[in-house]
Amino acid sequence: MLVMSSPSGAGKTTISRELLAREPELTMSVSATTRSPRLGEVEGKDYFFIPKEKFHQMVENDEFLEHATVFDNSYGTPRAPVEAALKAGKDVLFDVDWQGTQQLAGKARTDLVTIFILPPSKPELENRLRTRAQDPEDVIQKRMAKAADEMSHYDEYDYIVVNVDVADSVAEVQAILKAERLKKMRRTGLYEFVRVLCGKGEE
Amino acid sequence: MLVMSSPSGAGKTTISRELLAREPELTMSVSATTRSPRLGEVEGKDYFFIPKEKFHQMVENDEFLEHATVFDNSYGTPRAPVEAALKAGKDVLFDVDWQGTQQLAGKARTDLVTIFILPPSKPELENRLRTRAQDPEDVIQKRMAKAADEMSHYDEYDYIVVNVDVADSVAEVQAILKAERLKKMRRTGLYEFVRVLCGKGEE
Repeated sequence: MLVMSSPSGAGKTTISRELLAREPELTMSVSATTRSPRLGEVEGKDYFFIPKEKFHQMVENDEFLEHATVFDNSYGTPRAPVEAALKAGKDVLFDVDWQGTQQLAGKARTDLVTIFILPPSKPELENRLRTRAQDPEDVIQKRMAKAADEMSHYDEYDYIVVNVDVADSVAEVQAILKAERLKKMRRTGLYEFVRVLCGKGEE
Repeated sequence: MLVMSSPSGAGKTTISRELLAREPELTMSVSATTRSPRLGEVEGKDYFFIPKEKFHQMVENDEFLEHATVFDNSYGTPRAPVEAALKAGKDVLFDVDWQGTQQLAGKARTDLVTIFILPPSKPELENRLRTRAQDPEDVIQKRMAKAADEMSHYDEYDYIVVNVDVADSVAEVQAILKAERLKKMRRTGLYEFVRVLCGKGEE
């Protein structure tokens, strides 16, 4: 389970897309939401769009690994598809904020790797938040305050990637993924493999 | 501080050489030894060749990060050059066995990354130990017993690399190095950087 968090405007979406294109063993966790689909959003790919009543029922049944309500809409990570992917030997990528990360950590303490993506500079962050938004100034200010709040939690993460160049950042996340897969605790069958190497097990 | 251990015959020397050629920020720790130089070995590059009396004096003065006596010869990692390299911002690579790793871990608990290199199979290990040795059978058997003893300590290491292909193994160690450098605890200046991003520090 690989978690990437960042303030919006840091470039996380681009990094995720590139990463998924390059890592066939990595699959994106698709969130459920109660908000309406935006133009071009695809059910089951961008989100699972579900009614509020169903969302609340899933919360009560503990069917989310994490969930939250932001600006009147609810978002959550359904547990079942994640567990199916992990069981199939896939790694799962989560795009959640610091509160989601804390909830995931609480439910999957043993095997969570967390990365925080930071923007390269404050002017660049402001620039990105303005360019992509056709919104009025007060909405932009609200978004910048939210970014600052999100960034204040960087130190709860295992790894920090400063996104100066997207290609470099993708390579950094790939290195993290590769290294984490080489960690002793994630390597299955090692005990028997070494027994054989030492001449004590079956060839 | 990056430690690579393996039984002899697993290909660690080749991996180290390739790694050092590709990682300019990585420098090899040169051991001191009381044994005589072999043909082609260079003082200060392969080893620091020192007399037994000087070695024992350095042990008494706590000038080694780790030391051991193997087959009547003593080997040790002098502390001063390692500390100078770390102070200059370099990463240092150590080629030591499991006992050396334990001693290093005792003296530098905070910042040690350990990798164990395993051979791809038992026949391949035997093959490598035979090919490179012009030694009699009993010496080879002694070496294989030593390899088995070394491998039994694989589970004291952070990462396991199975050396099927040298280029792949070098890429794996490079990924470990890259990922470890991205760990939050190794990133200096982050606190101030995030303060600025949040609009609370000096631009």
